[in-house]
Amino acid sequence: MLRQGERLDYLVKENMRIIQNDAVFSFSTDALLLGHFTKPRTRDRILDLCTGNGVIPLLLSAKGSNHITGIEIQPTLVDMAQRSVAYNDVSSRIDILHDDIQNVTRRFKPSSFDLITCNPPYFKINQMNQHQIEAHKIARHEVYCTLDDCIRVSGHALKQGGRLMMVHRAERVLDIFESMRRYAIEPKQLHMIYSKPGKDAQTIVVEGRKGGNEGLKLAPPFYIYDASGAYTDEMKAVYYG
Amino acid sequence: MLRQGERLDYLVKENMRIIQNDAVFSFSTDALLLGHFTKPRTRDRILDLCTGNGVIPLLLSAKGSNHITGIEIQPTLVDMAQRSVAYNDVSSRIDILHDDIQNVTRRFKPSSFDLITCNPPYFKINQMNQHQIEAHKIARHEVYCTLDDCIRVSGHALKQGGRLMMVHRAERVLDIFESMRRYAIEPKQLHMIYSKPGKDAQTIVVEGRKGGNEGLKLAPPFYIYDASGAYTDEMKAVYYG
Repeated sequence: MLRQGERLDYLVKENMRIIQNDAVFSFSTDALLLGHFTKPRTRDRILDLCTGNGVIPLLLSAKGSNHITGIEIQPTLVDMAQRSVAYNDVSSRIDILHDDIQNVTRRFKPSSFDLITCNPPYFKINQMNQHQIEAHKIARHEVYCTLDDCIRVSGHALKQGGRLMMVHRAERVLDIFESMRRYAIEPKQLHMIYSKPGKDAQTIVVEGRKGGNEGLKLAPPFYIYDASGAYTDEMKAVYYG
Repeated sequence: MLRQGERLDYLVKENMRIIQNDAVFSFSTDALLLGHFTKPRTRDRILDLCTGNGVIPLLLSAKGSNHITGIEIQPTLVDMAQRSVAYNDVSSRIDILHDDIQNVTRRFKPSSFDLITCNPPYFKINQMNQHQIEAHKIARHEVYCTLDDCIRVSGHALKQGGRLMMVHRAERVLDIFESMRRYAIEPKQLHMIYSKPGKDAQTIVVEGRKGGNEGLKLAPPFYIYDASGAYTDEMKAVYYG
């Protein structure tokens, strides 16, 4: 079942297995944080953009979601995600599609989803290191889709009142707010993720609501490490439950 | 020296006195927080919009600033501020002007200031309680100036590279970002003020830079009270040094 270079990792809290391959793609802490802050309702129709090896669909299925579609442009990752879905016996709840997210507006009717999650490529093209592995370039840089693309297609695919949950680097927070408002998704909640006390936030999770009223909540800070460098209790809860 | 209803309050850390009158205006914790997060350079030419009873100019003069202009529309508050400035013997360093901030664009040439501070009226007109005292309505609601007005005139009066420091309610953070970008002031740093652990932020202090590069830093959170309801050490430091 595993191909060359792959390993089977364990999602402790979810009691699930996930196929990873450091030469191609491994999920990051940020994906776990996106899963943590996303509160799906059981009947939500969910779309996960840039699904990678399917980590977000797996995390959300463990929260009870039954209608999850993941979309990924890299065939190697689609293959990994599909085998992980099969291995965990959640094929009836998760569909992994091989497609460019630019096609979301053609592939799905407007207002098809209650919830969209997205852990997009973080870096701009001009920040790309030409010596990186091609798969890493695509997963980490805006080669095939920009932040604005992700939010634009979400604006199409979300129902009125539907939610977009996005994790990104803190430095892009204004870009996210601007794009969300451009596509009628109102930023409703901002989670700041601090690596440790006394430093600026590195990562954010933004919740937007299609057609929502104005009013952004700045949630309590989330710390990954405490001052001594150990995982905080809240981070341990993300990993281990 | 004190008029009817007035009292002389003590700014402990600054070892200064300030005239207040609850029936007209008393400064809030938010003003102290704005003073705390503002780091003036000695030679900065500073403008404080909506200066009220002059608390921000007094706080900044105690940090060593020598060229501070405060502008206030309510004559009663201008009078209080001017007497506080005289009492503390800082008249050579602080000018309090009686004017509408709408006149900033006529009164001052473009690029006149290195630093602008602003603790504006927080509430929209439609949130106004008609039974409030007139002076409170004006100080707390956007009767004579909106958030966008404050930022617009700051865009005029700031030098390239000059800073705008604004305190406001957390729910207006997106309005601040949008207005800043509208007038070429790039949001550079966001301080989130939490009343206590586990709650959303109530107050924010935003630093913008005229003509600055993109890149917003999300600063470490600031707590006013700890979980037991006592002032935190960082809040005690704001009050008492």
